[in-house]
Amino acid sequence: MKQTITDLEGVYANAIDAGIKADGLDLAYIYVPDAVASAAVFTQHKFSASSVSYTKRCIKHNTLKAIIINSGNANAVTGKQGHQDTKTIVKLVAEKLNIKANQVGIAATGIIGKLLPMKKVESGLNKLLHSPTKKHANAVAEAILTTDLVSKTTFIEKKVGKKMVAIAGMTKGSGMIAPNMATTLGFLVTNANLPQAILQRCLTTAVKLSYNMLSVDTDTSTNDMLVCLATGQYKINPTDKPSLDAFQDALNEAAIDLAKQIAKDGEGASKLIQVDVRNAVNVQGAQKIAKLVVDSPLVKTAIHGEDPNWGRIVMAIGKDTSIKLNPEKVSIKIGDFSIFSNGAPIDFDRQLLKKELANSTIFIIIDCAIGNASATAWGCDLTKGYIDINTDYN
Amino acid sequence: MKQTITDLEGVYANAIDAGIKADGLDLAYIYVPDAVASAAVFTQHKFSASSVSYTKRCIKHNTLKAIIINSGNANAVTGKQGHQDTKTIVKLVAEKLNIKANQVGIAATGIIGKLLPMKKVESGLNKLLHSPTKKHANAVAEAILTTDLVSKTTFIEKKVGKKMVAIAGMTKGSGMIAPNMATTLGFLVTNANLPQAILQRCLTTAVKLSYNMLSVDTDTSTNDMLVCLATGQYKINPTDKPSLDAFQDALNEAAIDLAKQIAKDGEGASKLIQVDVRNAVNVQGAQKIAKLVVDSPLVKTAIHGEDPNWGRIVMAIGKDTSIKLNPEKVSIKIGDFSIFSNGAPIDFDRQLLKKELANSTIFIIIDCAIGNASATAWGCDLTKGYIDINTDYN
Repeated sequence: MKQTITDLEGVYANAIDAGIKADGLDLAYIYVPDAVASAAVFTQHKFSASSVSYTKRCIKHNTLKAIIINSGNANAVTGKQGHQDTKTIVKLVAEKLNIKANQVGIAATGIIGKLLPMKKVESGLNKLLHSPTKKHANAVAEAILTTDLVSKTTFIEKKVGKKMVAIAGMTKGSGMIAPNMATTLGFLVTNANLPQAILQRCLTTAVKLSYNMLSVDTDTSTNDMLVCLATGQYKINPTDKPSLDAFQDALNEAAIDLAKQIAKDGEGASKLIQVDVRNAVNVQGAQKIAKLVVDSPLVKTAIHGEDPNWGRIVMAIGKDTSIKLNPEKVSIKIGDFSIFSNGAPIDFDRQLLKKELANSTIFIIIDCAIGNASATAWGCDLTKGYIDINTDYN
Repeated sequence: MKQTITDLEGVYANAIDAGIKADGLDLAYIYVPDAVASAAVFTQHKFSASSVSYTKRCIKHNTLKAIIINSGNANAVTGKQGHQDTKTIVKLVAEKLNIKANQVGIAATGIIGKLLPMKKVESGLNKLLHSPTKKHANAVAEAILTTDLVSKTTFIEKKVGKKMVAIAGMTKGSGMIAPNMATTLGFLVTNANLPQAILQRCLTTAVKLSYNMLSVDTDTSTNDMLVCLATGQYKINPTDKPSLDAFQDALNEAAIDLAKQIAKDGEGASKLIQVDVRNAVNVQGAQKIAKLVVDSPLVKTAIHGEDPNWGRIVMAIGKDTSIKLNPEKVSIKIGDFSIFSNGAPIDFDRQLLKKELANSTIFIIIDCAIGNASATAWGCDLTKGYIDINTDYN
């Protein structure tokens, strides 16, 4: 069964331990020599890393053929030397792969504000790129992790016209997760053949429904980046709407699958929280409400405690005064349990609800009853594990 | 030494244990029979409690003479019965004090979504208001607490013209703290004599610099309310600008003193965090940056761990893309230690900084170097204590 990016034709990937992190794999490539299109969405952070500004510049006018990734050091807020190091890395990769420097994307994740150990990086690159056509995607999925406990990959196949088009991908992320028009690191490869502008539009749409609806802790990274490369195997006619819609569906599904895996592996998390908002006035309002609930520390701690304190959900919904909402029409369910109807509490069996809250995924459904827009957000509970991980990260 | 609201002439207060909370004082009055003016700022929460809507209506056209307060139950999101209970309480208080119902303010704090135990409340009111001219302000400061560990009071005296004008107050709050144009519960009394509209303007100004710059956990309450009563002893001419400015200064000082006490007693907190933003383009931007830093869970956990991971402060500053900021001009200090200058890291002695971070108050100073607006925000660290308190509040 196909399950990873290197199961696609013409996609290569590998990773090594270059000594950037204390231990484990930390330097990786994804290489698609015949890529026909590439698209990406980046963090909007004011102090975005040099990897972000570099890759953003490249992808504007070129198709990326390779991405070089390191973990253990974000190379962010590292001044001129940081930018210089990014250029050095990309130049070396381009030479080794015999492509142009502006066909190489670069991504980094790890501690902010420290210079890269360039000697280790350079000798690592020489070793890694000695064999640029390996098929070890799982090593890459592992090498991009930081505080994550598990690798996160996806593989979606969907009928587009008469062909089975595939989208494979991997992502990382556990803390500092509240993407703003972008994400933590994520890498997708499709075997479709689409013009770069269309692929970009599809990726931006998918991000809005997936990574941008994800929050672990409301903090956002300087290094967020989601890149998608297309191998070009199956041509999709961009004027054939049903085919394009089918491709968009597959891409959404892949991105949502990865985003949910990040929420589930949120730092210290024991439960995945999914909030569905229905019948809101508009999508923006529905998205805001869903995010208020997954972002609320008091909702997150109550769910961790399996405490049916539904008042906190109401508290979170009502926080943002800019959202159109009629408090007297709001109804709330947790799983199948109605706990609040038309703005008023209703009787429910606390013991049965406590049983529902013992599940590892908690579904909160909010019906605004004033429109027909909907949105879904994902988050996780807040536990002592989050405190443990983040009191001494350095 | 004068130190509490009942040290002012004509101000009465008392509290009893009416059995609303599991144990401890939970029902209280503040009574100023000859009050000449009253002002208040309320939560903007969409599901605001009946105490909020009732008191808001009263204060619009009347001067409050008394406030009745209960803890242990917020009487919020309790539908029609909740509103009816509010009316019943206020009517009873008005009868006992021989004033009008629209001269009685009401405030409540505690769990959301549960009906008040009205039998207990009514017999409690009969007992409490049997002696409406007690001078037990400290009992009230205790009775309004929920998860707070300590009472929070303030007493500021300042020369206004030729008179020493006093502002005394008390507040509560520990979790669900990120006031939006209002606060958790707070009660101030001044012996000044000012027209109601002027007092309201002064209170609104003070809130912007104090309670609205305070965050424990980004969650906001359905019951927030800050009320100020004036006994009328010392007349301030509202057209005498120096006197009015001196009064405003005293009011700001009192409100900031109370807000800081809330941050310091934040649920599970071990450290007070003060963030000063200087030389920003405008006050709104300065306030946003200061709040981004005190709100960031990753900054809060790093400070709890006394970890000099300054990259997280940079991360928090850059999150909001709507703020005008030149990343290359930003400098950051922790206490007296410069850790970041003109957008780049600088060498510092990690061991000395670790010592600075061992203090119980952490000062973070951010210089934007692109304007002359400034702002200060207060918050606290994020610890396992917060998780303990909030996983099983019910």
